[in-house]
Amino acid sequence: MPELRKDYATDTWVVFSATRGHRPTDFDAIPTSPTKAETCPFCPGREGMTPPETLAFRRDGEPNGPDWWVRCVPNKFPALEAEGEVLRRVHQVFHRVSGVGVHEVIVETPEHDGHLPRLGPRQVEEVLEAYKQRYLDLTQDRRLKYVLIFKNHGAKAGASISHPHSQLIATPIIPRRILDELRGWVNHHDATGGACLFCDIVAEERQVGERVVAENDAFLALSPYAARFPFETWILPKEHEVSFAAFTDRERAPLARLLQDVLGRLDRALHDPPFNYYIHTAPCNAREGRDFHWHIEITPRVTETAGFERGTGFYINPVMPEDAAARLRATGGEDAR
Amino acid sequence: MPELRKDYATDTWVVFSATRGHRPTDFDAIPTSPTKAETCPFCPGREGMTPPETLAFRRDGEPNGPDWWVRCVPNKFPALEAEGEVLRRVHQVFHRVSGVGVHEVIVETPEHDGHLPRLGPRQVEEVLEAYKQRYLDLTQDRRLKYVLIFKNHGAKAGASISHPHSQLIATPIIPRRILDELRGWVNHHDATGGACLFCDIVAEERQVGERVVAENDAFLALSPYAARFPFETWILPKEHEVSFAAFTDRERAPLARLLQDVLGRLDRALHDPPFNYYIHTAPCNAREGRDFHWHIEITPRVTETAGFERGTGFYINPVMPEDAAARLRATGGEDAR
Repeated sequence: MPELRKDYATDTWVVFSATRGHRPTDFDAIPTSPTKAETCPFCPGREGMTPPETLAFRRDGEPNGPDWWVRCVPNKFPALEAEGEVLRRVHQVFHRVSGVGVHEVIVETPEHDGHLPRLGPRQVEEVLEAYKQRYLDLTQDRRLKYVLIFKNHGAKAGASISHPHSQLIATPIIPRRILDELRGWVNHHDATGGACLFCDIVAEERQVGERVVAENDAFLALSPYAARFPFETWILPKEHEVSFAAFTDRERAPLARLLQDVLGRLDRALHDPPFNYYIHTAPCNAREGRDFHWHIEITPRVTETAGFERGTGFYINPVMPEDAAARLRATGGEDAR
Repeated sequence: MPELRKDYATDTWVVFSATRGHRPTDFDAIPTSPTKAETCPFCPGREGMTPPETLAFRRDGEPNGPDWWVRCVPNKFPALEAEGEVLRRVHQVFHRVSGVGVHEVIVETPEHDGHLPRLGPRQVEEVLEAYKQRYLDLTQDRRLKYVLIFKNHGAKAGASISHPHSQLIATPIIPRRILDELRGWVNHHDATGGACLFCDIVAEERQVGERVVAENDAFLALSPYAARFPFETWILPKEHEVSFAAFTDRERAPLARLLQDVLGRLDRALHDPPFNYYIHTAPCNAREGRDFHWHIEITPRVTETAGFERGTGFYINPVMPEDAAARLRATGGEDAR
């Protein structure tokens, strides 16, 4: 059973994963070229190479057969384990929680060399629909307090298989970054007599204008005021919406369009950069976060963090968000494809 | 003037540095081979390539001449600016502070191809002495609330020049990681009726034993219980000591010996890995942290963080701290050199 341990002093948690076990000097070589289609476990026809699927979209045919267009499977090397009870132990300065949780892969397309910004728009909607269905299913499990949906693109961003895929990790504790955002939300709510922080961000940033990257009726994309990374871009629903799983069928198309639009702009501005994105939403099965405002954070990886960032939690960003937004606006959107 | 901005929701601060200005698509190419001695600005004889020194150890001779064995200079491309007033501005959801601060380089040796674990033990003491003297000098400046001393070794750890050097960044606000540790310290103090968290860590970890890497009379090196990174190692004074600058002449030699010992073990176990280290100590000129317990955190860089870490603030560490410590113990210490 993997183990979650808390730092002696801070709320930083670390997942120690036995199934990802290495001998101490044995690290994942970071692949420098794309993985080959001939041996790819995410390609159609090789469904047997993954654990049995948890969800797949296919017109007809058997589970775990081919002919799907989106397929979700448990991670073969999960960071957390699905079975077991959540035990919390504190002894002196040592805090740990059993590593119960879920770790899945969402294969975004059967095309080995596909790439989210270049897929058909309907396909991106299907990926978002898979995110939502897996999210809703997992939140039924009362042991789980948060479900993080995220994507690593490119070896430098941590993707060990180049076939387009997202991941999902559900944890028995609420991650500190989520708790931090929730606290900020509550502080703003109390200080303003009831306003939603993210609704105010949407309003303020649209008024200022210079950090807006793109928008449509339902969603806004912006370079956040204190972007930690060059070209970091967020996508927020314009209307107040607590949970990612609350996004409606009517919102699916505009969300898919804007996500694809922003990723396309980043691709053109930075020449297919490695990136991570992840969804921040209200925790599930928890007292905290009955109110929040979900959003997507996209962070390209074009600079390295070093000792200053590790030592302080500060970031140094050489690109002003206003310059990044201007550049992304000029790069041309959906019509430029 | 650079600018410090705070995230809309959390206490994450970002330094936007005009003097490090890039055009938006112009990023530091990460050097893949060591920089050449022929053009190195940190080599003796090329003192004119750096801003005038703030401190140097030399037997005799003019400032900014050769014949030094440790030399401190302002960073030529500073993240923060030394002159100016600290102005704090809050407007709606936007928080910023003027980017006043200090950014210096500590050149650890005249030898271009030197490496801290291989220098003579007296030389490492001299480096620590330079850290201390610069630290004490800068804390006289009442605008500064924290002085971070850190080292990046290897291009992957953010070192753009391979000549051995450390850095120091002093900021007008207390970094969040320091605030987090101080809060943890205070919570432990209050919960135990007056104990120091780090004194208790030293006592508990010595009793448990399995995460101890090495020790001498004055200092303990350990793999922390919730190490975020494989082979992360901390060095703590065994006796309660609030500030790094309080380390005495008597402690300088054992600290230099243990730092060098641990870096040597990491070198042998991981074959000269890239790493960062940084010193956590009490803030200066601030209400917070009249009490604390300084320590050094050393973090090798052998794995990449990805979307999960960015999205949650959690870390995944494939190596148990107990295994790392056993490996580092077996690697042999000072005597093995």
